Amino acid sequence: MKAELIAVGTEILLGEITDTNTPFIARELANLGIDVYFQSTVGDNPERLEDTIKLAAKRSDLVILSGGLGPTEDDLTKQTVASFLHRELVTDRTAMAKIERYFSETQRTMTENNRLQAMYLKGAKPLSNRTGFAVGIFDQEIQGPDFLLLPGPPSELEPMMMEQVLPLLKKTYLGDHVLRSRVLRFFGIGESQLTTELADLIATQSNPTIAPYAKQNEVTLRLTAWAQTDTDAQKKLNDCENRIQALVGKFFYGYGEHNSLAQVVATHLIKQQLTIAVVEGYTAGRFSTALDEFSDEKNVFDGGFILATNTEKKQSLIGEFNVSASKSSVEKMANCLKKKTKSDLSIVISHASTEKVSSGEQVGSVWIAISDKNENISAKKYNFSTIRPATKQRIVLNALQQLNDILK
Amino acid sequence: MKAELIAVGTEILLGEITDTNTPFIARELANLGIDVYFQSTVGDNPERLEDTIKLAAKRSDLVILSGGLGPTEDDLTKQTVASFLHRELVTDRTAMAKIERYFSETQRTMTENNRLQAMYLKGAKPLSNRTGFAVGIFDQEIQGPDFLLLPGPPSELEPMMMEQVLPLLKKTYLGDHVLRSRVLRFFGIGESQLTTELADLIATQSNPTIAPYAKQNEVTLRLTAWAQTDTDAQKKLNDCENRIQALVGKFFYGYGEHNSLAQVVATHLIKQQLTIAVVEGYTAGRFSTALDEFSDEKNVFDGGFILATNTEKKQSLIGEFNVSASKSSVEKMANCLKKKTKSDLSIVISHASTEKVSSGEQVGSVWIAISDKNENISAKKYNFSTIRPATKQRIVLNALQQLNDILK
Repeated sequence: MKAELIAVGTEILLGEITDTNTPFIARELANLGIDVYFQSTVGDNPERLEDTIKLAAKRSDLVILSGGLGPTEDDLTKQTVASFLHRELVTDRTAMAKIERYFSETQRTMTENNRLQAMYLKGAKPLSNRTGFAVGIFDQEIQGPDFLLLPGPPSELEPMMMEQVLPLLKKTYLGDHVLRSRVLRFFGIGESQLTTELADLIATQSNPTIAPYAKQNEVTLRLTAWAQTDTDAQKKLNDCENRIQALVGKFFYGYGEHNSLAQVVATHLIKQQLTIAVVEGYTAGRFSTALDEFSDEKNVFDGGFILATNTEKKQSLIGEFNVSASKSSVEKMANCLKKKTKSDLSIVISHASTEKVSSGEQVGSVWIAISDKNENISAKKYNFSTIRPATKQRIVLNALQQLNDILK
Repeated sequence: MKAELIAVGTEILLGEITDTNTPFIARELANLGIDVYFQSTVGDNPERLEDTIKLAAKRSDLVILSGGLGPTEDDLTKQTVASFLHRELVTDRTAMAKIERYFSETQRTMTENNRLQAMYLKGAKPLSNRTGFAVGIFDQEIQGPDFLLLPGPPSELEPMMMEQVLPLLKKTYLGDHVLRSRVLRFFGIGESQLTTELADLIATQSNPTIAPYAKQNEVTLRLTAWAQTDTDAQKKLNDCENRIQALVGKFFYGYGEHNSLAQVVATHLIKQQLTIAVVEGYTAGRFSTALDEFSDEKNVFDGGFILATNTEKKQSLIGEFNVSASKSSVEKMANCLKKKTKSDLSIVISHASTEKVSSGEQVGSVWIAISDKNENISAKKYNFSTIRPATKQRIVLNALQQLNDILK
């Protein structure tokens, strides 16, 4: 089973955007045991696209194209595949109804190109697009390779892949044994440290396989097991996970390919019916945004303050709060905030203070205090190098972890 | 001049790493006006690599390979190119001396593979590697395409590209004319509408060329002009820009490949020495975060409130503010906030209110009010379809645009 990936889009050829779809699809196929021998990128040009499809069709069993399903004149992927296969395009009624509804709601004018987004190859399987408008297409050919067409925006491609394509590929190509994956997520440990801790396990383990991936500020492990039944596969995964948790469990925070510390914390708050109020100094709204992503409409978030950079001026406005980065001040703030807002919990993230250490380098520190529903206060200081970027997002993750330790 | 990019590495095919070299090289070539028609990725397999090189040599004038120059047995790029071109490999003495020194200094054992990193195609130009060991190679052929081989680690490839390759490519392929680019950024107009408005101009214009790119929530146009002198090139760019501004200038907000509405607004605030206070309902911290990205440490941001989802409860805490989405309430809030914080400007983003429209579907709306330094208030209502995601980020951009219209 050889798959080949083709990314379509002049903006990729020009380096205007980085194609994250190809590595994403490649990783998911690798998990299924489907080999990818070639990846290529071609612009929005029908001749060169057709040449690329011809070459792929000669050497591969499954040709996966991403991009070029949108409503602009540049978007030619499905027309080109249809012409290559000598097939016509037909309309998916459900997809068309969704597009029509959107244009009627927003009172915009719909063009013929917009209708094209709802069309698919006659005889193929249309894949609905939960987060966008262009349908995906899975086409099984009796002679020649199968074709899979996916929309270009990752926000559309990734859910379509996880929810529809992977089950379809498993059913189509993997027959009657089952394949089960489990993703474990870790924060506070780097990829190299994690793989060092698990080196023996990773080396000796073949079913399940253990694949580590470094993500922004966190690491995930994907375990993939093959078995005759779901029960057997789950048992293999459980045994393997137990061995991993025994070694690095203290850095583990949750399961799933699409999960995050913010989501785990928001879910705890929702389930335990707790509210939280926030004061943010250094992070200037990022913590509130992170929680809001997952607690929207759920009344979890009890409002917050973002502290001004020019501190004294703001003292009068927010009463007893002050923003200096010290243990006692963040603890006092957390108590005061909880009382004023009558929230179940409160969290205070101070402004950063920087200092020179003995080596002469500058380091920064931020205090985070959380007051929980039993009036217990946890306050911690986080240090960071001022030369390392993306620190604000990392402080948000530390705050979420500190909160998660209280809630879990 | 047609270039083709080949990334070599099984770890890319497996999705274990995301190839950032290809978009980086593509962008730099686009800036030089060198067209890239194909990009492909191939694993560490000599037969498939040779097939890929053969195909590229047939259809392109410059074949650029990245990766596969390292010291492991998988690294076969230069051997495969040498075999394809029937050329032998010779040693670059300076590079070899650097490798030998490293192994002697660190008292490690050097293998034959390590020596291979200092070798290049006989008759070609070796490119020294400031941040690593593997030499790059630039090979000009009399018949057939030229070859450029670059190391895989971005920390080696990127400096080699900027410091040596770009000057070399300019000298080799561009002769003595100059090439100048200008990027114009637009918000509030879609790519298809922009290209429709500029259709005549884009069709008739060849120097400068006009290339539109759709980005997340915005569109950019890149103008690229060729001329004998910098002055002539700038004149061509100015003329072209004037014609564009006359047609779509009201959506224009700034220049540059790396820029954003938030950056433009923050820069206005800093230059005009203004402070702003924020109340965020629907956007829950995202507006404050956007401003903070670019006004950090500059005392622009005068603090803010994030309104709780459960509104009544918070009334007491934030005094006279209330959060209902109506023109009069956001205007009152903006005035009150400015007075309380003594800021130069204030902005209030309401919570969303949703309503059923005549079609029976739900739509959402958000009110944004800004009070400026002359006590003028601008309030606007923004509608959005509830089925389209990423709306909160879009509301932030609308708020930034509304603010930019006041500041610019």
